Amino acid sequence: MPKVTFLPSNKQIDFEDQENLLKAAMDAGVHINASCGGAGVCNKCRIFIEQGEVKGEELPDGGWKACNTVPVTDVVIRVPVESEMDRKALARPLASKAVSWIKIHGESLDLKTEPVVTKELIDLPEPSLHDNISDLGRIRREVGQSFHLDVDSQVLYRLPYALREGNWQVTASIMETARSDHKRLVRVQPGNETRANYAVCVDIGTTTVSAQLVDLRDQKVLYESSNYNPQVSFGEDVISRMEFSRKVDGLDILKDKIIECLNQLIEELVKGANASKQDISFISIAANTVMTHFLLGLETKFLRAQPYIPVANQFPPVRASEIGCDLPEHVRIFLAPCVASYVGGDIVAGVVGVGLNHHPELTLFIDIGTNGEIVLGNQDWMACAACSAGPAFEGGGIKFGMRATVGAVEVVHIHPVTFEPMALTIGGKKAKGICGSGIISLLAGLFMTGVLDRQGKFRRDLDTKRVRQGSEGWEYVVVEKEATSIGQDIVFTEADVENLIRAKGAMFAGYLTLLESVGMAIEDLERVILAGNFGSYLDLDQAIIIGLLPDIPRDRFFFAGNSSLTGARAAAISWPKFQEMKHVSQMMTHFDLSDNPRFMDHYVSCLFLPHTDLSLFPTVKEALKA
Amino acid sequence: MPKVTFLPSNKQIDFEDQENLLKAAMDAGVHINASCGGAGVCNKCRIFIEQGEVKGEELPDGGWKACNTVPVTDVVIRVPVESEMDRKALARPLASKAVSWIKIHGESLDLKTEPVVTKELIDLPEPSLHDNISDLGRIRREVGQSFHLDVDSQVLYRLPYALREGNWQVTASIMETARSDHKRLVRVQPGNETRANYAVCVDIGTTTVSAQLVDLRDQKVLYESSNYNPQVSFGEDVISRMEFSRKVDGLDILKDKIIECLNQLIEELVKGANASKQDISFISIAANTVMTHFLLGLETKFLRAQPYIPVANQFPPVRASEIGCDLPEHVRIFLAPCVASYVGGDIVAGVVGVGLNHHPELTLFIDIGTNGEIVLGNQDWMACAACSAGPAFEGGGIKFGMRATVGAVEVVHIHPVTFEPMALTIGGKKAKGICGSGIISLLAGLFMTGVLDRQGKFRRDLDTKRVRQGSEGWEYVVVEKEATSIGQDIVFTEADVENLIRAKGAMFAGYLTLLESVGMAIEDLERVILAGNFGSYLDLDQAIIIGLLPDIPRDRFFFAGNSSLTGARAAAISWPKFQEMKHVSQMMTHFDLSDNPRFMDHYVSCLFLPHTDLSLFPTVKEALKA
Repeated sequence: MPKVTFLPSNKQIDFEDQENLLKAAMDAGVHINASCGGAGVCNKCRIFIEQGEVKGEELPDGGWKACNTVPVTDVVIRVPVESEMDRKALARPLASKAVSWIKIHGESLDLKTEPVVTKELIDLPEPSLHDNISDLGRIRREVGQSFHLDVDSQVLYRLPYALREGNWQVTASIMETARSDHKRLVRVQPGNETRANYAVCVDIGTTTVSAQLVDLRDQKVLYESSNYNPQVSFGEDVISRMEFSRKVDGLDILKDKIIECLNQLIEELVKGANASKQDISFISIAANTVMTHFLLGLETKFLRAQPYIPVANQFPPVRASEIGCDLPEHVRIFLAPCVASYVGGDIVAGVVGVGLNHHPELTLFIDIGTNGEIVLGNQDWMACAACSAGPAFEGGGIKFGMRATVGAVEVVHIHPVTFEPMALTIGGKKAKGICGSGIISLLAGLFMTGVLDRQGKFRRDLDTKRVRQGSEGWEYVVVEKEATSIGQDIVFTEADVENLIRAKGAMFAGYLTLLESVGMAIEDLERVILAGNFGSYLDLDQAIIIGLLPDIPRDRFFFAGNSSLTGARAAAISWPKFQEMKHVSQMMTHFDLSDNPRFMDHYVSCLFLPHTDLSLFPTVKEALKA
Repeated sequence: MPKVTFLPSNKQIDFEDQENLLKAAMDAGVHINASCGGAGVCNKCRIFIEQGEVKGEELPDGGWKACNTVPVTDVVIRVPVESEMDRKALARPLASKAVSWIKIHGESLDLKTEPVVTKELIDLPEPSLHDNISDLGRIRREVGQSFHLDVDSQVLYRLPYALREGNWQVTASIMETARSDHKRLVRVQPGNETRANYAVCVDIGTTTVSAQLVDLRDQKVLYESSNYNPQVSFGEDVISRMEFSRKVDGLDILKDKIIECLNQLIEELVKGANASKQDISFISIAANTVMTHFLLGLETKFLRAQPYIPVANQFPPVRASEIGCDLPEHVRIFLAPCVASYVGGDIVAGVVGVGLNHHPELTLFIDIGTNGEIVLGNQDWMACAACSAGPAFEGGGIKFGMRATVGAVEVVHIHPVTFEPMALTIGGKKAKGICGSGIISLLAGLFMTGVLDRQGKFRRDLDTKRVRQGSEGWEYVVVEKEATSIGQDIVFTEADVENLIRAKGAMFAGYLTLLESVGMAIEDLERVILAGNFGSYLDLDQAIIIGLLPDIPRDRFFFAGNSSLTGARAAAISWPKFQEMKHVSQMMTHFDLSDNPRFMDHYVSCLFLPHTDLSLFPTVKEALKA
């Protein structure tokens, strides 16, 4: 792979899978002005080739557009600078990333296969006058010696035919119960059908529904698919959906929508895996408390209002067909247990998915989603809370916030002297808005370059057109109109900053409150696990700079991806993991922060960048000094 | 009460609830010729009043019609006799009756009330921010401390409303499971609904369905009702119904019919008891194997043909609404377990109903119904068999056989010299036919008076018009045309006798086969319990004379009535009794007599009156000598 050297900073990088030299510069820690996100329209990212060969877009007045040029050989590139100040400023730190938890500690993927429904091949002696026990008795005699075998009454209708069609060889689907000495016969198929024993695993998020088809023989994910939660049309967040559910038929509509979505995803899974719905033995679902209620069609009226009471936190297995899934009668849905109104089965599944409950280290598990749930603890105890952080870090409530799709500004570097941005979009397309990682990167950059003060206010006295008073107050122009696909300047406003400070403040106040409740402090944290989409792209330093994450050694951070889905899959592959989820949900001490005076105190202290008390953020304090 | 003295035999009786002097004579062991059954049309039952006062029908040529006369004061009555022979013959033995098992050993009625569904009144603390566990969790915390409490998913829909409507006082219906440390919440009602906890108990017989509504607080039967099994239209016996079930929709029709019947009976029960269907907590049903299959809509094709395999002998609790009963969703049906194709839940319920499994005495339990099932054993072991006796003793296959309703000849005494009958009908109405007890009484009388020989053939040389050659062979005229309501002579044919001998032979061969299988003999029997309708009216001596019952001391006989219904009720009142039924069904060794060579040997020996080997019937042998 070609080696790229950037002058004057003399930083080097191997050009690997970056799309262009602009992205390579970002990865190398080199600032190049670029305000169109890399879409090739602003012409600001001019570079000069001093050695080697490139191909791409040469500018008429000399130089190349970094955003549209790739190296052919090793190259030496000069980034034009106007002053010595610039030169120094170009040395910006490399992004610090969390490492994959699953790659390092992924024990939940190293599971013994013992699903809740197993398929057993049974060869039975043919009945005779001297051995004429009932069909069911014959099966029980063969498999039910060491445990009590209950039976679904539905099985009895098929049973006599299955036995005789299979010439007394049948495949029995046997389901575990809460008691190891109690099982349940849920299906009998003629002949050997043991090869096909699949589970569907689902994470029902407020925004996205993700599903996998897992082969229970070898734990392989045969196919996966995801889609937006169609309930979004009736409310972006759980609160507005709960409001909607109170309308006539509202609850039914929400239930129908999610069932429809599940049905579609399952269709896709079986089609994609070239499987049959008949081969699905059960479904494992993790979802937050509200989503779980909607899935079952349970009332959320009392969950919505103080004191926030769910109908249930642990749910009995439900027949998929009974709630409207287009699946055979034997298929049951196993739902991850919830802890409280706003700490749901997704968190419990996540905790079990990453195996937090098997590690002695003090761990902070963070799911920065719409709500922001956190779990603090280890194998012996756990405390959890929902922080009501809101969806700011998903782009919600941010003027130009958007989801992380093509055209979203995903990373921004601010030039410390000129305050010009180096902004990259997803897919290198014209900018449409700013996604979560872009927002964090922008907020951190503006703060560290002094464009924003610790209260989150723009400095009014800067010599740059980027900071200006807009129609809604002071703002920073991230991408100028000409370089966007939306025909207007993409700006980042003081109101946006305020929302983000409140959001990160709620999260951090949550950490502090839980830590304090067990007499511990930030520095005691041995591990921080980031769940959700954030993990792999997040620049830890930036997230710490803005006070969203605690300022502890970066090697204590891990990202776990969709740990809720990981947990649902773990519970599908291993029934004991499902039992663990129950155990975890019961061992978790829930702190209701909405009513907690200590939380309110911490929250107020957190409404600064990064925090009122800078000693909590030693590396940020150090960097600010420099 | 008036004292009645009959001359010349000088027998005395207190006139109690007999309808007339003819019935009083029958009870006193006095023969009075009477061939119209007591309907007042044959004018043969003339008596003379020697002392005291009577009222009734005086005959123009002197004397009174016994069948239509009652005493006003103490009376002395002379029965006209034609010869000294007659005089001696009038001393006929009194009927020997079995005593009520329930009255003497009725422990199953002395049950601790612990039904499978209990209603518990729960007062819950109102939730607050500091106590905001889920609604279900709140209930579990209150009642589920000492056991694992599962929950019907249906309960969750009503739960939040019930709690709040009841202002945090609710009535929880909690169902037992096979494990004492595992229960299930099946219903939650607002407020105190504990007063209404009813069970429906049902015996589904091939011919009759009997139901009771039981108050589970005090074990009282609030109302009872019964009806013919409407499946009768599709076949008199289980075999013909199984044949019918193989037709298109046959099984569905049979299922629908019995469900319809259940629905009607339940309507009658709640109406009669002024109760509500909402107050029914569950249903306990005892039925034979075929009826149980039809109720659930299970295939009987393989039960019908060798080697006679039921789908199941133990059935999971089924939701009543799921199989079509018009009842709330929480109501489950608990079915008595069966033993084999022709030894069903009715027998198992009967055995538990009489408590056979709690007595050390060697007991023979006999249910002479359509099929004839027997159980031999005690608290330690049990053997059972179906005898394929057929319905002869219910009147089936008997030319003038009929059910025990008004107009049925229910008892007959044969004059040993004139061979004239003294026949009484139910309700004293003109005769329509002969019911079971009449058939036994007739067969025994004809045999003991020598009208029938030991092979069951009529003596052709008797000086009586009563015995004659009819269109279908030799026969005995029980009631002459003029005295019947059907316009023809009611006769008892040699073919009838043959059928009866085969039926009683099958029963007795069954007793012998089971006894032999455990190395025991007739005289070892310590108790005989007669189940079904037979018991209370049966003249034991007569049943022994014809070889239907074993010739052992009469005080060893008991009748138990509808023990199947008794058992279903016991299981409703006491969940442990239901567990006992399971245990009993599993401890019973079933003998398939259809394939048993010893049974065939015994059967052939039983095709005599009372048996080839008279030494098996010492009292009959003695009486025949006399």
